[in-house]
Amino acid sequence: MVDLQDRTGSARFGIQFAAKLDWKESAVTQIAIALYPEMTMLDAVGPYQVLTWLPDADVVLVGADRGPLVDDKGLLRVEIEHTFDEVSAPDVIVVPGGFITRSMAVPGDPLVEWVRAVHPGTTWTTSVCTGALILGAAGVLDGLDATTHWIAYDELSRFGAHPTEERVVVRGKVITGAGVSAGIDMALRLVIELAGVEVAQAIQLGLEYDPQPPVDAGAPSKAPPEIKALVEAINS
Amino acid sequence: MVDLQDRTGSARFGIQFAAKLDWKESAVTQIAIALYPEMTMLDAVGPYQVLTWLPDADVVLVGADRGPLVDDKGLLRVEIEHTFDEVSAPDVIVVPGGFITRSMAVPGDPLVEWVRAVHPGTTWTTSVCTGALILGAAGVLDGLDATTHWIAYDELSRFGAHPTEERVVVRGKVITGAGVSAGIDMALRLVIELAGVEVAQAIQLGLEYDPQPPVDAGAPSKAPPEIKALVEAINS
Repeated sequence: MVDLQDRTGSARFGIQFAAKLDWKESAVTQIAIALYPEMTMLDAVGPYQVLTWLPDADVVLVGADRGPLVDDKGLLRVEIEHTFDEVSAPDVIVVPGGFITRSMAVPGDPLVEWVRAVHPGTTWTTSVCTGALILGAAGVLDGLDATTHWIAYDELSRFGAHPTEERVVVRGKVITGAGVSAGIDMALRLVIELAGVEVAQAIQLGLEYDPQPPVDAGAPSKAPPEIKALVEAINS
Repeated sequence: MVDLQDRTGSARFGIQFAAKLDWKESAVTQIAIALYPEMTMLDAVGPYQVLTWLPDADVVLVGADRGPLVDDKGLLRVEIEHTFDEVSAPDVIVVPGGFITRSMAVPGDPLVEWVRAVHPGTTWTTSVCTGALILGAAGVLDGLDATTHWIAYDELSRFGAHPTEERVVVRGKVITGAGVSAGIDMALRLVIELAGVEVAQAIQLGLEYDPQPPVDAGAPSKAPPEIKALVEAINS
């Protein structure tokens, strides 16, 4: 029997949700979302907003060092309360991306080494955007189909992965999502695996995730060539 | 002539972007995103991630008090560096939502009074999700079509607004977005108004916003009735 009082605040909605669902209480799933300086915030907050609704989930935000870190826009300053050392056996990990992962994705980086250490014990190992490069550097993607931000396909292949132009790629227990906003779709897919389609539908409705972008250039295959060239130029 | 060095970090990508676009430099648009305790983080981070790409934009995160605040899940702790007093003439405001706005949307609340004070001088006044209730309490929506999280349509109508089941509603200089994730679509629509379709396409491609939800229950009209009832029960 899980003591509901024992959980962090993150479980608040999950508990209400479980009660309404007549949820059969099971072991709590610890979901660790990794944060690091110069990350892209939406990469983490998309999955965060989805996964904190899950019944029986305990979401923790984890980083190399306690204290504040600043995102890649230099504006959003968030506090890390749990270090990698303290979260040594998560059930699920989510690794968001950012331009900076290109230089972080090497042996010895604290995030890479944490992924390497915890991956054998996870139920699901996931990434968003260039977070896949961290999984790659930790040896998780060798020989696997995977995705990342479209601009980083070549870099992903250096780790033995087969870059795949799908929004969410599931291979065994590894789920990779495409660039930035794909974290929402990736997390909903993860919810289906963890808790079933009905829970994913309820979370989708709660977040009113019925996307209707007013432009249709969200993938390299859809964008006008000059727009693609522009975005490549900015990111080079 | 705008001094590029004079801007906050937020403009970093905007500047690169402007350079590649051969952007004709114009006055900087100050975009103030309001944050408050117990807000829903994706409501703010969706637009934030879109708008910090804009050329000639200076995005500021503003709140009632300097210091850290915690979101509605009790986990994400972000730092407020600019108070409402310091941001007295923003060009654009973005008001995100959260369950808590139901009790905040009354005269005298610092966010409501800030919106009331700055709205006459804005170029665009915008909201995401139940942030619309704050606009309503500030008198911005009287007689206007507007949207909010689907669960709050009735509350919105109390402010004289006409709740509208569209994802993004533009009426004059007021743009309201539907629940939580709709902030991304709302912000892209705002980008079209501020900088044109090509810039919106480039930002969409940069964020790889080519949504493919693995379930299709993101609006009350699409969700199975029992899923809708479940989400209503959680939110009541």
